[in-house]
Amino acid sequence: MLTFKLENRSSDSSARAGSIHTAHGEIQTPIFMPVGTLGTVKGLTPEDLLDCGSQIILGNTYHLYLRPGAELLSRFGGLHSFMHWDKPLLTDSGGFQVFSLAALSKITDEGYRFQSHIDGSSHLFTPESVVAMQDVIGSDIMMCLDQCIPYPADRILAEKALERTTLWARRCRKTWQEETGCRNSLFGIVQGGMFTDLRKRSAEELVALDFPGYAIGGLSVGEPAELMYEMGAFTLPLLPENRPRYIMGVGTPENLVELVSHGADMFDCVMPSRNARNGKLFTRYGDINIANSRFRMDEKPLDETCTCYTCRHYSRAYLRHLYKSRELLAYRLNTLHNIHYYLDLMRCMRAAILGDRFAAFRRIFTEERARGL
Amino acid sequence: MLTFKLENRSSDSSARAGSIHTAHGEIQTPIFMPVGTLGTVKGLTPEDLLDCGSQIILGNTYHLYLRPGAELLSRFGGLHSFMHWDKPLLTDSGGFQVFSLAALSKITDEGYRFQSHIDGSSHLFTPESVVAMQDVIGSDIMMCLDQCIPYPADRILAEKALERTTLWARRCRKTWQEETGCRNSLFGIVQGGMFTDLRKRSAEELVALDFPGYAIGGLSVGEPAELMYEMGAFTLPLLPENRPRYIMGVGTPENLVELVSHGADMFDCVMPSRNARNGKLFTRYGDINIANSRFRMDEKPLDETCTCYTCRHYSRAYLRHLYKSRELLAYRLNTLHNIHYYLDLMRCMRAAILGDRFAAFRRIFTEERARGL
Repeated sequence: MLTFKLENRSSDSSARAGSIHTAHGEIQTPIFMPVGTLGTVKGLTPEDLLDCGSQIILGNTYHLYLRPGAELLSRFGGLHSFMHWDKPLLTDSGGFQVFSLAALSKITDEGYRFQSHIDGSSHLFTPESVVAMQDVIGSDIMMCLDQCIPYPADRILAEKALERTTLWARRCRKTWQEETGCRNSLFGIVQGGMFTDLRKRSAEELVALDFPGYAIGGLSVGEPAELMYEMGAFTLPLLPENRPRYIMGVGTPENLVELVSHGADMFDCVMPSRNARNGKLFTRYGDINIANSRFRMDEKPLDETCTCYTCRHYSRAYLRHLYKSRELLAYRLNTLHNIHYYLDLMRCMRAAILGDRFAAFRRIFTEERARGL
Repeated sequence: MLTFKLENRSSDSSARAGSIHTAHGEIQTPIFMPVGTLGTVKGLTPEDLLDCGSQIILGNTYHLYLRPGAELLSRFGGLHSFMHWDKPLLTDSGGFQVFSLAALSKITDEGYRFQSHIDGSSHLFTPESVVAMQDVIGSDIMMCLDQCIPYPADRILAEKALERTTLWARRCRKTWQEETGCRNSLFGIVQGGMFTDLRKRSAEELVALDFPGYAIGGLSVGEPAELMYEMGAFTLPLLPENRPRYIMGVGTPENLVELVSHGADMFDCVMPSRNARNGKLFTRYGDINIANSRFRMDEKPLDETCTCYTCRHYSRAYLRHLYKSRELLAYRLNTLHNIHYYLDLMRCMRAAILGDRFAAFRRIFTEERARGL
């Protein structure tokens, strides 16, 4: 099971720096977790990920359950050895993908019944089965099955979903304790839609169950950024200070800085990797589209202040050429850069928190990002 | 200009080992040149290529002329710096791609008029312009413009094409001498279809022009392997012993071993990289399709005797999973392996030639490849 050490708290915000110790190594927080849906962060090797500074990656239980499946992962002793990654690994519960990807999904207190988006075959995810599956995967951090709701959602749906999420959290916790011997860690997920009182109730019910860490789910589902910030700022302080706090599925660099300022420790998002494959690249001075003709003859590295492999060796013109030619290397070099950008942003935030200069960091970050490349 | 040193000749075949010295480093022959059509070997970085043992790669003048174009390559001082590759580089003349890819191409003694396969725009390749373009690219080894013919082709067409190829070789050589100062090297290309007397005439006319190296074109265009071997075996001894001999666009591992036995020094082919992207992988014990269900739970490395990055770290089951899931990493890991396989095969041939045991090497190679994985 993990241990969390709080190392410093910013005096001018709620930002915090800490470290999480797992069987596969230490994670320095705040941290961003690249998404490796199917046992690979698209286009990158584990060595590339380490080169970008990755300390933990995320796998998707829904996808891994369908392909390659529990039988194969069990044979390989889990995802770590299958994919050649020996650092920490977190998996979601699969609930969000059932909600967003599966055909004809049906939710009851029992769990999710759904049809595979690949072949239409029928499946059932229960709180018990998703913990068992994550145990087969060998995730250092497993997530409870929760009920995701769309945005906007009315209060009645939000309340029902939070109640079911608590019910399931209790059953997940029981399976974790009784069936897996707590060899890894299980996080509870706070739901409650955009209603502060429901968020409070959800947080309290989960905190009473005493999980090794807590996540806030149901954000970044289409709501305005201000509302996401409001919900994050409200919910984060309701979670125990001595446990890691993870905001799921968020977000832009600006989102991360804002939510770190409210005390978030962990993030995951497909944005850096997916945007990279669409030619949308993050830089210190704002975001760019590498396909833009202004880069056609541009000999400068993508981001002159960046130390990633891509920026050390290639020009904007070369990256544009690869992207316009749909070369495989485009996706890889772009993904390397974007993941490095995100992880470097987290490292800078952590250093600022440890040096108690988070407010100054944030002011410069905001100015530079608005400046434009 | 390059120099070629013949290091050893097999006593039981015409196989030979040598070394080519260029401004960008040494090439140990016999050698295979991975194909980097658009300024990238699809999916690999230059570091990956070096890790596979690549000593020289090939770029396609037709493709590079259309994208990114001469203006941009000139601005960057050539392809080496544009693509971050500082080892030797060879480019074809573009003639073969005009023949196989361009729309509405028309050939006269002036050159090729053609429409781009990308946007239909009109262009003209002359012997003079393709040498100038290759000089802009900065190729260590440039190729003369030649006329490719389909298989089968009648004697009249083959003879006309060889005459035009000689005419163009003379003009290419003039441009190379007068316009580029011979800073790099230019190879002549022997044509002549499947007619030995025409091959002989073509070789003699080109040898009289005294090029730093010679290629045999017009093979691997659909003819039976036996006919390709016959043409290779006939033509190779007509080329000067103290110059490198390059067989263009060939081929399978078996093709390479056969043609090395007749004295070929250099090869290029899209087969290892293109097959890799289609899941067709080369191993010491034969070729396999990684999608095959027999590999679903297979924990062994692809080729247990292979030392490539892919075989050192991943199982057949993982490679199958990536390939079936169409993950970007599949293309990269497969390409790494196939290129490594080809280059390792060349290294083994070279070692066998240097140790004068080529016949024994070849017997074992043939037996093992036929055995099946």
